Formats: sequence, structure tokens, C-alpha cells
Amino acid sequence: MMQAIRRLLIGKPLHNNELGHQRLPKWKALSIFSSDALSSVAYGPEQIMLTLVAVPGLIAYGFMAPIALSILLLLAIVVLSYVQVAKANPGGGGSYAVSKKNLGELPALIAAGSVFADYILTAAVSVSAGTAAIISAFPFLAGHEVSLDLFVLFIVLMLVNLRGVRESSTAFVLPTYAFLLGIIGLVAFGVFKAFTQSSYLIHPDAFAAQPLNWMVIFLILRAFANGCSSMTGVEAIADSVPMFKRPEARNATITTYWMAGILCLMFTGITFLIMHYHLLPIPDITALSQLAEQVFGRNWFYFYIQVTTMLILYLAANTAYNGLPILLSIVAKDGYMPRYLATRGERLTYSNGIILLTIAAAGLIVIYHGQIDHLISLYAIGVFVSFTIAQTSMVVHWRREHGPGWKIRACLNGLGAFTTGLVVIIITVTKFVHGAWMILVFIPCMIYIFKKIRSHYDSIAKQLSVPPEFVIKEKANKAESKHIVIVPVSTPTRVVFNTLKYAKVIGDNVIAVHVANDEESERKVRAKWDQWDMSVELVVLRSPYRLLMNPLIEYIETIDNMKGTNDFITVIIPEFETKRWWHRLLHNQTGWVLHTSLILRKNVIVTTVPFHLKE
Amino acid sequence: MMQAIRRLLIGKPLHNNELGHQRLPKWKALSIFSSDALSSVAYGPEQIMLTLVAVPGLIAYGFMAPIALSILLLLAIVVLSYVQVAKANPGGGGSYAVSKKNLGELPALIAAGSVFADYILTAAVSVSAGTAAIISAFPFLAGHEVSLDLFVLFIVLMLVNLRGVRESSTAFVLPTYAFLLGIIGLVAFGVFKAFTQSSYLIHPDAFAAQPLNWMVIFLILRAFANGCSSMTGVEAIADSVPMFKRPEARNATITTYWMAGILCLMFTGITFLIMHYHLLPIPDITALSQLAEQVFGRNWFYFYIQVTTMLILYLAANTAYNGLPILLSIVAKDGYMPRYLATRGERLTYSNGIILLTIAAAGLIVIYHGQIDHLISLYAIGVFVSFTIAQTSMVVHWRREHGPGWKIRACLNGLGAFTTGLVVIIITVTKFVHGAWMILVFIPCMIYIFKKIRSHYDSIAKQLSVPPEFVIKEKANKAESKHIVIVPVSTPTRVVFNTLKYAKVIGDNVIAVHVANDEESERKVRAKWDQWDMSVELVVLRSPYRLLMNPLIEYIETIDNMKGTNDFITVIIPEFETKRWWHRLLHNQTGWVLHTSLILRKNVIVTTVPFHLKE
Repeated sequence: MMQAIRRLLIGKPLHNNELGHQRLPKWKALSIFSSDALSSVAYGPEQIMLTLVAVPGLIAYGFMAPIALSILLLLAIVVLSYVQVAKANPGGGGSYAVSKKNLGELPALIAAGSVFADYILTAAVSVSAGTAAIISAFPFLAGHEVSLDLFVLFIVLMLVNLRGVRESSTAFVLPTYAFLLGIIGLVAFGVFKAFTQSSYLIHPDAFAAQPLNWMVIFLILRAFANGCSSMTGVEAIADSVPMFKRPEARNATITTYWMAGILCLMFTGITFLIMHYHLLPIPDITALSQLAEQVFGRNWFYFYIQVTTMLILYLAANTAYNGLPILLSIVAKDGYMPRYLATRGERLTYSNGIILLTIAAAGLIVIYHGQIDHLISLYAIGVFVSFTIAQTSMVVHWRREHGPGWKIRACLNGLGAFTTGLVVIIITVTKFVHGAWMILVFIPCMIYIFKKIRSHYDSIAKQLSVPPEFVIKEKANKAESKHIVIVPVSTPTRVVFNTLKYAKVIGDNVIAVHVANDEESERKVRAKWDQWDMSVELVVLRSPYRLLMNPLIEYIETIDNMKGTNDFITVIIPEFETKRWWHRLLHNQTGWVLHTSLILRKNVIVTTVPFHLKE
Repeated sequence: MMQAIRRLLIGKPLHNNELGHQRLPKWKALSIFSSDALSSVAYGPEQIMLTLVAVPGLIAYGFMAPIALSILLLLAIVVLSYVQVAKANPGGGGSYAVSKKNLGELPALIAAGSVFADYILTAAVSVSAGTAAIISAFPFLAGHEVSLDLFVLFIVLMLVNLRGVRESSTAFVLPTYAFLLGIIGLVAFGVFKAFTQSSYLIHPDAFAAQPLNWMVIFLILRAFANGCSSMTGVEAIADSVPMFKRPEARNATITTYWMAGILCLMFTGITFLIMHYHLLPIPDITALSQLAEQVFGRNWFYFYIQVTTMLILYLAANTAYNGLPILLSIVAKDGYMPRYLATRGERLTYSNGIILLTIAAAGLIVIYHGQIDHLISLYAIGVFVSFTIAQTSMVVHWRREHGPGWKIRACLNGLGAFTTGLVVIIITVTKFVHGAWMILVFIPCMIYIFKKIRSHYDSIAKQLSVPPEFVIKEKANKAESKHIVIVPVSTPTRVVFNTLKYAKVIGDNVIAVHVANDEESERKVRAKWDQWDMSVELVVLRSPYRLLMNPLIEYIETIDNMKGTNDFITVIIPEFETKRWWHRLLHNQTGWVLHTSLILRKNVIVTTVPFHLKE
């Protein structure tokens, strides 16, 4: 029945041959790989606003424009850098693969650790933001954020991904374009209204910037750091070059530019409108929802925006499901994670990785009660650490390659590495107490775990390897292996009879051992023995202290110490399997005790011939 | 280290020869076997008083004297009956043994169930009462009743009994006589004071009995039922006849009379004094403590009474430790309880029974917060059920024997059976809601469990027995047992090498099976195989669905279905033991899965050659 439920939920097993990629045209690739990046505008600009209004006085919008401009500049640099990555790595591969090739183990592991954090947070943040969008539209759902989030994670995302979906499925194409259309419509109409209805124009006072002091600078930098969350996901296209139609690198580059252009347009538009309508945070209502309401009122277009926002955000969470299990499998193949993360399940998906991701993201959502603001604090840092490492790898790559125009390319990536590195420092400093410290603890922990796991596998591989000399030496050792079979007997029952039959099959030298508390017990067993006449020697050990195990184990140890290193001892415990588990409570567990007492001895095998009680 | 602690607490193992009884002189036997009965006066009369004062008005003492007299009459009947039991069963044995011999299985099981309840309650009630005595003397201990009770149960009683103590030890003789002396002194001095200081004489009003109505009758009967708790433990001497010096039956009879006489004296004295001083319940102060204070004031004699009361009560709890484990072992030998309750531990004590009793009594104390009043409600009923069954058995016994004077003896026991049966009904009716129902549920439950266990053992014995025909048939079957050894191989490591060596030792027909997901995996394993040249056939199963288990199990099943019923298949799983338990998390558990999948097949043995990783 478990099997049937599983089939229903997950589907039938898939054949190896069913694995394979479909090449994507640019318009499909754009929608699929940029859902994470584009959906960020649903929370990025809002995060800048939230940080600024935290300051008393009206400085809120005085610094918003410069911050937004710096983020756009940063976006330009990162995009240009990643175009280089796409060109240099037509085989694809994220920052782990790139840095492993160019920089070595440690940077690669740092990248892996930060991308892990990044993916888990992508899932958690996107699902929470999607739920926030829908709660803004339907306020009666407020208070059920965490339940909704968990439902989406476990029932929608996990199950869909365990079944395995083609990334190219049209189901994934529509929401992105629908969202894009909605936001561009919102921005266009909003800007049109802003310039035609003069009454709504921004009041000049709102732009009055407070005099700068360290406190204010710190807050501006923190707002910038929060705004950087709009840029998560830009690397997705560069990581997936081989999925594009030929010429892959060129198509990927063009798509990256398109994505950057759209992202830039939406980000600028939304930021402008937030400033124009002078939005302030309202509990349970996102900034995007406020905007849409200001621009359209609560009509069907408003609901269209909210629903498509929700859809693209859940889709963005899905990119974590596309990315993390594959990354886990690559890292696991290198021996830094448990090996079974590298094997595909029966539906060809990396099931273990999918489950792991779901649990981790669900854990974060439960801990932070599904509040995006808190999750965002943890976010960007991992992304930018991996950006920095990837760009640095590219500098090394170009220096090694010495291809045409390598200097310019190296400079471009160098600039990218420098800027993103700077951003890492800004985020670390301004958001340290807000959660950045957690990521800075998480990454070293992950590196420690990676190394521990790898060294365990290395040590096992060494211990288990069979060098040719070993085989030759073993063969040279002509000494015949001797084999002694010991059967402990308490009462001569059918189980013992059956066990003895097997014992005689697997060895010529069978000894039955009985531990007798007193003469009567000995006499009884001997009588039965003579009656059976199995031609098996019966050794009786006297145990005046009524201990069963000790004399038996001592006897086996004596024989073990006498035997050669090449010889084997098999101890076969006559045990029966009861029909119901609770019947076990009525029988002593000597078999189990014997098993654990002998397990550490070399070439002593403890086994049982299963005998099943029918009642 | 565990072993060392155990030695320290429990002591070294004892030799079988160290078992053996010392015969007891009457004065020793009296103190040892009557601690339970005599100590009952510490709570019995108080319980009558508690029930009576629950009635509004001054009827309290109006009915106390008649109730006390009926209890004394009942005591006389029970003692006379038990003297018959002692004469008829010089071999000893409680109501279980007696009724099993004379009445059959069901009454014996009812007796066993009620005596179980009785012993557990003896331990719980006596420990709680002992603690109550000491708290009355040292009020600052109030509030720690449960902790004190548990300390006495686990640290004193359980440990002492696990070590095993000679029942004849003088440590057990002194407290009884010390208590006896104290109480007789108290009674004597109290009565003397009562008749010399006329001002203290009982006011005639206190004797004014309210008119009888059903409600009052019910309460009187309940007070009587509570008072019956003074009579628990009277059967102890009759159950232990073989412990006496010769002539056993005569000495036991005399001791029983002595005990009854002393009990009667103490019970009458205490009841009289309670009435005389017109005691009323005071929280945390026992009636005996109130009496002692009234008679002597808080001087050394008061404390002497309290301390000896505590000692004899703890000693009474100890009688449960002497009785229940032995009874459990007898019942277990008959197959109604798990067999291991019938084996003596290394200190010759029935350790499992001792632990069971401690846990059960501790459970009751915790549930009832160590309040004796609540525990008493459960008490007497089990005792009187077993009295009734024992006396009925004796009637049957005398009728069978037809010895000299059998009619008088049968009548005596018949009277005993009738009276105690009547008491059972009175207790059941008057204390049903106060807890008697629990015992009435407990006993049938126990009988159900007894029968279930017995039928399980019977069915196992039948299934496991080896009748001579079976041996002859097996011998006649001359067909040689064939043996196929299957070794599943995932990667050819040292573990596989080692496993193959063992496989070749235990069988000539060894097949290695590899499940390959793809050609590459197959090629790799084959290459290694050829290099090893172990002359073991390698079968490769292709698994395009990447399932490891299913193809393997199917293959083994195919071979299993082809083999004869006389043949064996051994599946040896090459598995290594990791050095640390958490290392296991890094490896898949295919061995375990294979084991559980194959365990139900007949003559398929699944085993492992232990290979221990050193790092």
C-alpha cells in the first residue's frame, strides 16, 4: 500500500534513457532562468524603503535615488562579468565548478557553502514573498503565512520536484511573461499618471537629504545592502549555457543582456513609483500591492499583478530546486557530501537533495515565522560571496588562457570581483547583527563538514582498496582456510535441528555447545542428543554462577585464539522469529547479546538460520 | 566501568551451592513473617476513624467499637482457617499453589492476579505509611513524601534485594520486636492514664450512635472495609511452613497464634485510645503519632515509637520483595509469565521480578502522590480475594483427603471462605468508586495476559518440538543438501575480497552478483574481477531504472525458487563497520534493507563478514 501511495504521488520509475536535455530557444530560456532575478523586484526596492523609513525625520526618500542608481551600476558590472563567465564556460557550471578549476579546493568549498546558503534562502525568501503577495490581496489569509508557506514547500514544490519536471515545460514559461507584462503595465501607467496628475508629483521636501554623519552613512549602506537582494539570480543564465540552442555562448549572452535590461527597467520603475507615491510600510501589505492599488485601485488588474507576482515568486523558489540538488550531487561526487546525494532516484531526480532543501527552507520559515524582512537579512551575503569567488576564478582563468583580448576580459572580471567583494564587506558590516553573522558561521561550518566527510571517504577508500600486491600475496599464501562452526544450544528444539543441518552444510567441523547450570539440564540435553544422532559433537560447559553468556563467549574466544589468521569461525545462533513483535518480549535476547559481544573479532562470523513461527 | 559500578552496588556473582535455607526458630520466624501483619496497626485503626469522621455530626465514635469487634472476629476466623492451611501444606506455597492443586487453572490465576496486586500495594502502602510516620515526627520533611518514598524503594529496598539478603538476618528481627515493645508500652501507659486521669475519660455523648439509615450503614461498612487493611499479611506464616524448625506445622501454628494474639492486643489498644482521646485527622500527622504525643508528650519515647514504626513499615514493604519475585518465578515456570522471570540472577535473586515490583510500586506512589488514604482504597480487596480462594481450596482439599476430623476442618475453612468472600463483596460495594474497580479490572486483565502468554509458549513448544518420527524422516531423506552462496558486489573492495574468501570456505558454489546502472560500471567491475582471478563467477544484472535492490532480490528469488526444499542459499553482504556511529550516516544501508527483504524466505541465510574500519 505504501508503494501504491508512492506511485500515486511520485509516479512510476523512469528509465535511464529518459534522461536528456532539450535545447531551449532564447525566449524560453529567458523566462525559465530569470524568474529568480526578475521576481526579486517584488521585494528588493521595498527593502531599501523599509531601511530608510526606519530613520526618524523625512530623510527616507532623500537617499533612495542614489542608492537605486548604485545598485543599477552594480548590476551592470555583475552582468558584464557574468557574460565573460558564459563565454569562458560553454560547459556551464556554477561558481563551485569554476573556482574548483581555477582557484583550488578552499575557494571552491567557500563557494559551495555560500551557494548552499543562497539556494536554501532563495527557496525560503521566494516562498515567503509569494505568500506575502497573496496575503496583501486577500487579507483574510493573514496569520496563516507559515502554514501557506509550508503547504507550498512540501505539497507543491517538493512533490512536483520529486516527480521531476522538465524545466522546459511551458508551465514555467507563462508566469514569467505574465508577471513581466503586469509590472511593465504598472510602471508605464504609473509613470503616465505621475506626470499627468500633477497633484501626485513628489513633494520637493521629500528629497531633502539630512546632513551626512556616520550613523546616516551606515544606514544608507544598510539600505544598499538590502537592495542588493534585487540582484540575486543574475548568475543563473551563465551557469546554464549548455541548455541554450547553438551558438550557446552567444545566445546566452544575448539573453543575459535582455534579462538585465528588463530587470533594470522594472527596478527603476518600481523605485520611482515608490518614491512618487511616498509609500510607507503597512503590516501585511507589500509595497508592490500598495503601488498597484494606488495606480489602478482594487480592480482586476490589481489582482492580476498580485497573482502573477505570487506565481513568479513560487517559480523562483523552484529554481532552488533545480539548482541545489544538482550542486549537491556534484559536491557529493567529489566526496564532500554523503555519496547517496549523488545518485538519481527512480524518477531520475536527486530525491535526497530535494527533501533536504525542503526541510532546510521549511526550518528557516518556521524559525522566522515567514517574515521576509528577517530572512532577507541572511540573504544577499551568500550570493555576493559566490559572485566574488566566481569572478576571481575568471581572472585566473583569463591569465592562464592568454587568449585574444584576455587583458580586457580579466580587467572586466577583476572589476566584478572587486565590486562584489566590496559589497560583501558592506553587507557584512551593516547587517552583521541582523543575521549576516549566521551566514559567516554557517560557511566555515559547512567547510569543516565538507572536509571531514571527504577525509572519511578518503580514509575508507585507502582502507578498502585492493592493490595488486595484496592479491598476489594472498594467492601466494597457500595455507588452506580452516573453518569451525559453533552452534550454541540451550534446548534441543526444531530450530536447533534446522540450524545443525545448515551448520553441517557450511562446514565439516561442527561443534554444538551447551551451557548447563546443573547436572539435570546437562543430562536432558545429552539424552536428546543421543536420540538425534546427528554426528555432531556436543560440548557441555558448566556454569555454576548461572551465567549463560560468559562461559560461551570464553569458549569461543579460546577457539578463536587457537585458530590461524586465515581460518574462520562461524557461530550460528538457533533463533526463531516470532510472528508478532511483542512476542519477542517473552523471549530473552541472548542471540543479540552474543552477536554484539563477538562482532569485534576478526574472521568470526555470527549468523542465524531464520526459523519462522507460524503462530 | 559499568561492570565495576554494578559489582559495587550488587556484589559479586554467587555460586549455585550458596543457595539454601536456614531453618528458623519460632521467635525469629515471628518477627520476620509478621512484620506485614503487625505493622498494619499503624494505619488500620486510623482508616476506620477517617471514614467515620467523614460523616457530619458526632457519630464518629458511636460505631467504632462494633466495627473493631467485627474485625477482631474476622481475624479470629481467618487465623483459624490459615492454621488449617499450614497443617495441610507442610510444603508451603501461597494461595496460587494451593488453589492450582485443588481448584484448577482459573481460580489459581485469579489468586495469582490478586496476590500480584496485593504485593505491589503492600510495597506502596507500607513505604508510604513508613514515610508518613517519619514526617509526623519531623514536619519539616512534609512535601517531600514522594521523593522519600522513591528513595526508599529504589535505593534501599531494590538494591538490598538485588544483592540478596538472608531473610534470617538479625537486622530483620530487631525492628519488629522494637516496634512491638513500643506499641505495647504505648497501649499500657495510655490505658493506665485513661483510667487514672478521669478528666480524659470518653464523654458519653461521643458514643451516641445516629439512627441507622442506608447511608449510615453504607458508611459503617466502608469503615469496616478500610479497617480490614489491618489484616493484610496474616497469611505469611502459613505460606512459609518449610522455613520453620521441626516439627514445622506445629511451630508454624503456634507462631500464628502468637502473631494473632499480639495483633489483636495492639489493634484493640490503639482503637481504644483513638476513641478515648477522641482523635481527629490532622494533615501530615498520623493517628499513631497523635496518640504517642497525647500519651507521652514529645519526648524520646515519642520519637522511639515513630522511628520503630517507620522501620517495621519499611520491613513490611520488604516482605513484598520476598514474596512477589518468588511467586512470579513459580507462575513463570508454569508458563503464565515471561520465562526469564523464573531464572535467578547472578546473586541468586530473581532480579527481574525485583525490578518489576519496584517500578510498579513506584508508579502507584507517583500516581497517588504517596497518599496512603488513596492507596488503601485499592488494598484489602486483593488480599481478601486470595483469602477466599485459598480457603475454598482447603475445603476441596479436606473433602478429597477424607482424613480424621476432615469434616470439622472443612467446616472451619468453609466458614473462612464464606466470611472472607462476604468481606470481598462488602469491600467491592462500599469502595467501588474509591478504587476497588481498578483491582476488579486489573485481575481479569492479568488473567487474560497469563492465558495469552501461556498459549504463546504452548504454541511455540508445539512448533519447536522434535518428535522422534521427525528425526527418522529427516534421516531417511538421503538427498544431499546443496548450498549456493551469493555475494552482492557493488565495488570490488577489500571487504568484497575478504567476503569472497569466506564464501569459498563455506560453499563450493559461489556466485558474485553486480547490479550495474550502465556499461561503464559493468566494465570497471569486470576489469577488477579478471585481475583478481578468484575463480568466482561474476553475474552482472543490468538496472536501467537505477534500482539496486529490486534486481538483486529478484535474482535471489529466482535461485531460491529453483532450489530444492533441502537446499540452502547463503547471501553474504560485504559490509564494513565504521569506527564511529555517525560515519554510518555517510553510507547507504543497503545491507540492512537486503536483510529485511530476505528474512522471510525459508533456508535463505543472510549474513555479513564483519570488516572493521580502523579510522
